[in-house]
Amino acid sequence: MALPTDEIRAFTGKVLRGGDIPEVYRTDRSGYVAAGEPEVLVLAADVDDVRRAVVAAAGAGLSVVVRGGGSGLAGGAAAGAGSLILDVSGLNRILEIAADDEVAVVEAGVSAAVLDAAAHRHGLRYTPDPASTAISTIGGNIATNAGGLRCVKYGVTGDATLGLDVVLADGQLLHTGRRTAKGVAGLDLTSLFTGSEGILGVIVAATVRLRPVPIDTITIAAYFDDVESAAAACAAVLAARVRPAMLELLDESSLREAQDLLGVRGESAGAFVVAQTDGFGARAEADIVAKTFGEFTSRVRTGSDPDAAAELLAVRRAALPALERHGRVLIEDIVVPRSRIATAVRRITETAARHRSRINTFGHAGDGNLHPIIVVPADDPDAYTRAVAAADEIFATALELGGTITGEHGVGVLKRAWLAREQGPTALRTQQSIRHALDPNGLFNPGKAL
Amino acid sequence: MALPTDEIRAFTGKVLRGGDIPEVYRTDRSGYVAAGEPEVLVLAADVDDVRRAVVAAAGAGLSVVVRGGGSGLAGGAAAGAGSLILDVSGLNRILEIAADDEVAVVEAGVSAAVLDAAAHRHGLRYTPDPASTAISTIGGNIATNAGGLRCVKYGVTGDATLGLDVVLADGQLLHTGRRTAKGVAGLDLTSLFTGSEGILGVIVAATVRLRPVPIDTITIAAYFDDVESAAAACAAVLAARVRPAMLELLDESSLREAQDLLGVRGESAGAFVVAQTDGFGARAEADIVAKTFGEFTSRVRTGSDPDAAAELLAVRRAALPALERHGRVLIEDIVVPRSRIATAVRRITETAARHRSRINTFGHAGDGNLHPIIVVPADDPDAYTRAVAAADEIFATALELGGTITGEHGVGVLKRAWLAREQGPTALRTQQSIRHALDPNGLFNPGKAL
Repeated sequence: MALPTDEIRAFTGKVLRGGDIPEVYRTDRSGYVAAGEPEVLVLAADVDDVRRAVVAAAGAGLSVVVRGGGSGLAGGAAAGAGSLILDVSGLNRILEIAADDEVAVVEAGVSAAVLDAAAHRHGLRYTPDPASTAISTIGGNIATNAGGLRCVKYGVTGDATLGLDVVLADGQLLHTGRRTAKGVAGLDLTSLFTGSEGILGVIVAATVRLRPVPIDTITIAAYFDDVESAAAACAAVLAARVRPAMLELLDESSLREAQDLLGVRGESAGAFVVAQTDGFGARAEADIVAKTFGEFTSRVRTGSDPDAAAELLAVRRAALPALERHGRVLIEDIVVPRSRIATAVRRITETAARHRSRINTFGHAGDGNLHPIIVVPADDPDAYTRAVAAADEIFATALELGGTITGEHGVGVLKRAWLAREQGPTALRTQQSIRHALDPNGLFNPGKAL
Repeated sequence: MALPTDEIRAFTGKVLRGGDIPEVYRTDRSGYVAAGEPEVLVLAADVDDVRRAVVAAAGAGLSVVVRGGGSGLAGGAAAGAGSLILDVSGLNRILEIAADDEVAVVEAGVSAAVLDAAAHRHGLRYTPDPASTAISTIGGNIATNAGGLRCVKYGVTGDATLGLDVVLADGQLLHTGRRTAKGVAGLDLTSLFTGSEGILGVIVAATVRLRPVPIDTITIAAYFDDVESAAAACAAVLAARVRPAMLELLDESSLREAQDLLGVRGESAGAFVVAQTDGFGARAEADIVAKTFGEFTSRVRTGSDPDAAAELLAVRRAALPALERHGRVLIEDIVVPRSRIATAVRRITETAARHRSRINTFGHAGDGNLHPIIVVPADDPDAYTRAVAAADEIFATALELGGTITGEHGVGVLKRAWLAREQGPTALRTQQSIRHALDPNGLFNPGKAL
């Protein structure tokens, strides 16, 4: 099937066909590659382009795969045979910053980093902070309900999302939500589209909440003998009523690899934790964090120097790229109740041994959100099969400990088989009925998310 | 239509029929009374009762109206002709408090006050704090996504709701969400049911987030010459990066009436604001709040004495009951962007004059959520008609200022006509299609919410 040429000419944005479409659109950062070649790529320049592309795709029997920064980690935006790719990264205007109301209105292609920088000029910030903040789009962040480093205090992307503009399967433009701090009129469509992974409609704009830049920020780093004591220290911090803005954990080799990539001569340790406190209580909270860490290790470093803090955070952010040097990586994303973090890490270590896989774990200890990274060396032909078996065991561990298979990356294509195991047939059937109600002909992202 | 006697016998809970059903089930705290008499009242004792009642009602052609504390403010739980009332207030067990994970699992009939008290024994609290906390149920709070006094810092009921158990139209039990701090597997059904006002299913249990009891709480009260300066002072506090846990405003006569009801000889003023700061930064934030208020009035009182704070909050909480002494009240619930609070209050004053209605306004200044209370004296036969016209004008004001017709009370039956004006036909159609997908035969709360 293909789009008639007249329909293509109608777009103000650029349109590419078949073999002219860059290969990158068949994949995302997960490494998953969709089967077959997509038919059409529409580089939309405005909402009208999006509406016309949706109607045209429906008429031509093509499916619609929405694309932002292409930084997804579950294959959700990978486009294959029979698809029209709707690249909305060109919708990249900040439409409004209402500083008094702490609200911004942005198009879907704006990156969180760009919005955050713009908000800073008003003494505000956009708190959602996915690791991909510089390369992902806010539309993609919303479509996956992305997390990041600040969730333990400030919540996830959905917590900052007040309203959306969405192009529906019939090409109509839907406005959801509001720009006020509260509001309960009607069903919460904003939350329904947030995290829906492109299966219900095309997010073209969002009204989001901004927050004041904190008056003070303090960074505390600590080096522990092992992950158990690091996890116990994190739990003790939270039990001390402290609400850090960040509480990140790296295991031994994640730390070493990150230091190596950055070329820093850091301390070695069985586990590394970096925390930040912010706001009016930052110093009081930092003192308690440092004192609490001090009950589990003698190596605690505290400072409010932004450069020193940036260096410590750089180590955390370098963990994934450092591991990617060693081959393809399977980036997992489980969440367990916070009290089970140490158990989860121990189980992951056992899984790694059982499947002769290299698995390094880091993540958001404050949320119980762990990223076990399974490294698949290129020179080991059997490694991928073992890695997949290890990943399955990690998902099973998450469910067994009362957790979930994905905390912030989404289901995409890679975790579909596990969704039913987590949620059961009634939840799956309910979701399918909603999907069918909004997209009766299965136009949007077929084969993904559910 | 009526339920066959055999079906009724199957319930372990108590069942009443026709004329035996107390009149109170036809109304709620809004004063709205449903037309006709409900057919059956099921006082459910457990989830099985709920499932059987739903299946039996569907079989008998009755609609299902779910009832908790009956404290709704929009008529959403008022049951009329052709209905089976499913009273779930008997499902009132706290099933679990997992202090380490800051999570509780409760049945729908538990009140927020009871849960909060139980959480306190673990050094935790349940932050959603609707004014009805002692008489409403958490199931009703979730069904309306109730707000309250602490939303400006801690969010609304939905922000504390991690997962739900819901009985669907076919009697199946749906589990939504999770018990972890984060999770993005599948569509966000938890948020969809939160605020759905009984039209999608019966909420029977919830997994909710708890938070540490703050280490410190300070109360600041200020008396202003007029509402304009009070609203400006509130805006200035928020612009100073302070995040109070509470920021409540009362107009002149709300304050006087509340003081009168309580028998306290308080100060008189054109407007009254009570704020609280809490946490590790409470003192630093309170200093800024007091200093900022001081730029708008000389009458600022600060204290950390719990008794003095309780007295100030009692004034805020007494505002509504004080006005209810003067007749039936229409309790409105608009939200405007925070920068428009003073404009909204001025417009409401003009509306009161135009319709010769008594309207007192108080509300959550930190959220822009105002409760204009229209008093309908019993001895004024024409007052109700004028009050309804005034309410319509207030809704129009809210929309004109970029706000919403309901911040925390819901649409129920009383605001249905205004929902379409706020959201437009596409949003309404989308919501109706979701309702139809989950409840194809219109079993749940027909004529409500949409």
